[in-house]
Amino acid sequence: MNEYALYHRPESEYAYALDDRTLRIILRVAENERRELTVELLYNNKYDFTKRRNAVAMKFCASDGVFAYYGADVTLTDVRFAYIFKIKDRGKTYYFSESGLSESYDFTLAYYDFFQFPFINPSDTVKRIPWTESAVFYQIFIDRFCRGNFCKRDDYITQKWDEIPKAKSYCGGDIKGITQKLGYLAETGINALYLTPVFTANSNHKYNVSSYSIVDSQFGSNDDLCDLLDEAHARGMRVMLDTVFNHCDYTHKYFADVMQKGRGSAYYDWFLIDGDFPDVKKGNYAHFADCKYMPKWNTNNAAVRQYLIGIAVAYLQMGFDDLRLDVADEVSHTMWRELREAVKAIKPDALLLGEVWHENTHYLRGDEFDGVMNYRVQKTFIDYFAHGKITAKEAANRLNRVLMQNFEQTNAMMLNFLDNHDTPRFLRFCNGDKDKLLAALCALVLFPGMPCIFYGTELPLDGGGDPDCRRTFDWTLKSQDKAYFARYQQILALKKQKCAQTGKTAIRAENGLLIVERESVDERLTAVFNTETAQMFPCAGEILYEQNYDGKTLKSNGVLVYKEKKE
Amino acid sequence: MNEYALYHRPESEYAYALDDRTLRIILRVAENERRELTVELLYNNKYDFTKRRNAVAMKFCASDGVFAYYGADVTLTDVRFAYIFKIKDRGKTYYFSESGLSESYDFTLAYYDFFQFPFINPSDTVKRIPWTESAVFYQIFIDRFCRGNFCKRDDYITQKWDEIPKAKSYCGGDIKGITQKLGYLAETGINALYLTPVFTANSNHKYNVSSYSIVDSQFGSNDDLCDLLDEAHARGMRVMLDTVFNHCDYTHKYFADVMQKGRGSAYYDWFLIDGDFPDVKKGNYAHFADCKYMPKWNTNNAAVRQYLIGIAVAYLQMGFDDLRLDVADEVSHTMWRELREAVKAIKPDALLLGEVWHENTHYLRGDEFDGVMNYRVQKTFIDYFAHGKITAKEAANRLNRVLMQNFEQTNAMMLNFLDNHDTPRFLRFCNGDKDKLLAALCALVLFPGMPCIFYGTELPLDGGGDPDCRRTFDWTLKSQDKAYFARYQQILALKKQKCAQTGKTAIRAENGLLIVERESVDERLTAVFNTETAQMFPCAGEILYEQNYDGKTLKSNGVLVYKEKKE
Repeated sequence: MNEYALYHRPESEYAYALDDRTLRIILRVAENERRELTVELLYNNKYDFTKRRNAVAMKFCASDGVFAYYGADVTLTDVRFAYIFKIKDRGKTYYFSESGLSESYDFTLAYYDFFQFPFINPSDTVKRIPWTESAVFYQIFIDRFCRGNFCKRDDYITQKWDEIPKAKSYCGGDIKGITQKLGYLAETGINALYLTPVFTANSNHKYNVSSYSIVDSQFGSNDDLCDLLDEAHARGMRVMLDTVFNHCDYTHKYFADVMQKGRGSAYYDWFLIDGDFPDVKKGNYAHFADCKYMPKWNTNNAAVRQYLIGIAVAYLQMGFDDLRLDVADEVSHTMWRELREAVKAIKPDALLLGEVWHENTHYLRGDEFDGVMNYRVQKTFIDYFAHGKITAKEAANRLNRVLMQNFEQTNAMMLNFLDNHDTPRFLRFCNGDKDKLLAALCALVLFPGMPCIFYGTELPLDGGGDPDCRRTFDWTLKSQDKAYFARYQQILALKKQKCAQTGKTAIRAENGLLIVERESVDERLTAVFNTETAQMFPCAGEILYEQNYDGKTLKSNGVLVYKEKKE
Repeated sequence: MNEYALYHRPESEYAYALDDRTLRIILRVAENERRELTVELLYNNKYDFTKRRNAVAMKFCASDGVFAYYGADVTLTDVRFAYIFKIKDRGKTYYFSESGLSESYDFTLAYYDFFQFPFINPSDTVKRIPWTESAVFYQIFIDRFCRGNFCKRDDYITQKWDEIPKAKSYCGGDIKGITQKLGYLAETGINALYLTPVFTANSNHKYNVSSYSIVDSQFGSNDDLCDLLDEAHARGMRVMLDTVFNHCDYTHKYFADVMQKGRGSAYYDWFLIDGDFPDVKKGNYAHFADCKYMPKWNTNNAAVRQYLIGIAVAYLQMGFDDLRLDVADEVSHTMWRELREAVKAIKPDALLLGEVWHENTHYLRGDEFDGVMNYRVQKTFIDYFAHGKITAKEAANRLNRVLMQNFEQTNAMMLNFLDNHDTPRFLRFCNGDKDKLLAALCALVLFPGMPCIFYGTELPLDGGGDPDCRRTFDWTLKSQDKAYFARYQQILALKKQKCAQTGKTAIRAENGLLIVERESVDERLTAVFNTETAQMFPCAGEILYEQNYDGKTLKSNGVLVYKEKKE
């Protein structure tokens, strides 16, 4: 028995409440041993555990290639829960408790080392926000999406709409332009917007905020914004704002005050300054990346937290539905916990989405964010669909690994994307191959979580890294590939399938094919992807989407999505 | 290379801030491979990591028998930290990143899968509370410690002071009794008290609180309590109160209101009731253990949290220094986070100590408790010192495992004990052998964390499980073993050694001896324990404590504590 592979931790992704009465318990074992193993969960009310236990068989739920995961969901009347694992391996019996692996176990002393989930407290339980089930997001980089206002002062615009943008280009896109296109977006299958920042900032991206309350005049007025929010809501569309609380612009009034008064400023401690005065040339203060013009807020300071949280609350009161939190991982956890409390108090269904590229579990335990930008999924899709660098097996392993690192309800609130304003366009990763892009898009829509489409993907827009990924949208639609667009719409519509919204997920590889299954009580939706040589695959059910499939054979860059009723 | 054994997780006990500039990074590997391995930490500011890295050798820091732990402390100027591990194993080189183990690593794509500690935010950093360094706690079960008031109504007392108590005995101990003995306690080496509950409750233990504000008249008056707190503070002694927020007594006015009005009561939702009315005979509501008379507070309800947190704040305002939180693991995390904020706002150096017998990391990340009751250490001490059930090697493994599960600064704020009001006396585990008790006491004082002595250990008092462990203190001191008491005092005095307060800890077994080392910049304190056959052990330094040691040989149940100056 491979003791090294065994892992379990209470009150983590290995033991969590699915709802106020149900616990999910997971045990990790070595993948190469799992066919030999039988795993049982022995459990009871923690006060009776030494006397007697219930036993339930744990079932294989996923493999990441190195490790396999066994799981059991237990619905309880008494929510004080103690448990250990009983493992049979080739005729031998083992027990796994807080003391580790042993060949015998003294139940009379179990109160010292059973695992426990001491009490399911509903206020601690992570709950899926209902609207996230059917959400299909669309990310808009405002300067490049659509110009709607032709009366505004436009001497800031530095290039024509159809030219390729440079890092500091201004193209004239604005809020009115978005409002005008809401009908179009709704028709394509979008029901939620993710807007990059809209408030005053001296840049085309507006991440260097100098006013958190006044809409940047290039983008329009606060009235324009309210119109957009009203119109979106009238169509049942949500609007998420990209909110920048890690840093601001050096011209923000508080930093400007410190520049003037140094330590004498009331706002000196609102930033992290090394010296008496901040010096923008030297950058002698904490700032974002190597951008000296973006001083970092000191969110260790309670006054700063209060100020920024007040802004978040104002955004929701203004009509924004959800907040994407920029560079969330460099801001203090203290800030996020307090922000969550304030936000959820006034709008319980507001999504809090953190920008965290790496290990994220620390943010996703119910007291900070609901979900994060799912960069790990993007990377796997790039490597599998676009670059063909990894096999279906490796893709399945990686995706399972991602899914096993968070609660099921958290996975459902992740924002999944193929590309965004910080990465090259997925089409570029695909070297222009639209079938690869469509295959990845299909996987994106069917993977647990909320798909997010970067504006222009429906044309599809091409582009390399920033600023090339931020090209303008071609509203003449002359560059649009109609056949591609039809498929794009079919794929987005898959999210209307109940299975794609709430189905249980199983991901595996078979004969070089990547298979994603989503299963509800009465039906099963299966998506089959092929990035390798053509492969026989006779379809068993009702076809919902296919490409490069002739009814029997799934060719390279082929996709088959079908649905079956369960017996 | 044993891939299964490899484990690392950012923002956990494997990667945490020691202070506002220093990170500790730990990698777990297989113990049986560690002699083959060389481990390096490759790191840089996360924005420059793809371009260049620093390298630092990671050093072996502990083994738990199955796993070995390598660590490195890195002091930073730029606190945005990215890293991966480079491992050499028998001529082969491996890399370990968020993507797992690989034989090559593409640094240009590292922003997708390096590990990161995105920013050291001081408001998130766990800090050791300074007074905990030298704390020696003494736990008092008030009804049994000392009677100081002979004027009070004493018709509640059911037995004579020197009789063995039963579950429902009342013996007459009170607050005045404690106040009278403060001088005595200070002389024995105690500088902090841990009092079991003092407020109104119809029991000898008072865990079933019916009033959270009025001192139980059996124990005295609120004035008596204030006198005790004043006198203790005058001697520089802290007082920690055992606070019961998981449940109350069914006679508590709010539960009584619900008993009367059922769903019509304003307090119906303050408890977790199944039905229209609570029924104490049926126990149709959540309660503590199988004690129907102790209804559980619904700490998922914000009003309940506000009420209980108000009480905690009142206790600190009354003069209590620290709070021990009873049955902490069944209360919501939401409650503890809010309580911490309220408590630390008015008394930053107040210790919040949770009663958590099991997995505790979830409570000890800086937003809930400072420490917990360290039951895992107690169990190891029972098995090693008292029962002789495990070898020195196994004891070292287990203690290292405990230490590696939390931050160093958290380990320093754990409450370590040999016994308490919920367990048999340690002397009973030792079958009356005082040498074993003294050896364990010595390990207790030198182990990282705060030792806590159960009242009467200085006699020593004997007793089995509850209620026998709650015998009365013999103030005639006739039963006191003077030689034992002298050793007891010597052992408590070891906590005055700087090394015992802040020294780095290393624990290992050698030739059947258990060795605990604590090391400061300029000296090293070594404690050697022997529970097996006599063993040669010539002492190298200044002896601070010894038992069953003749200068050359450490006999069974022998202890040797010595100090050396470092070169």
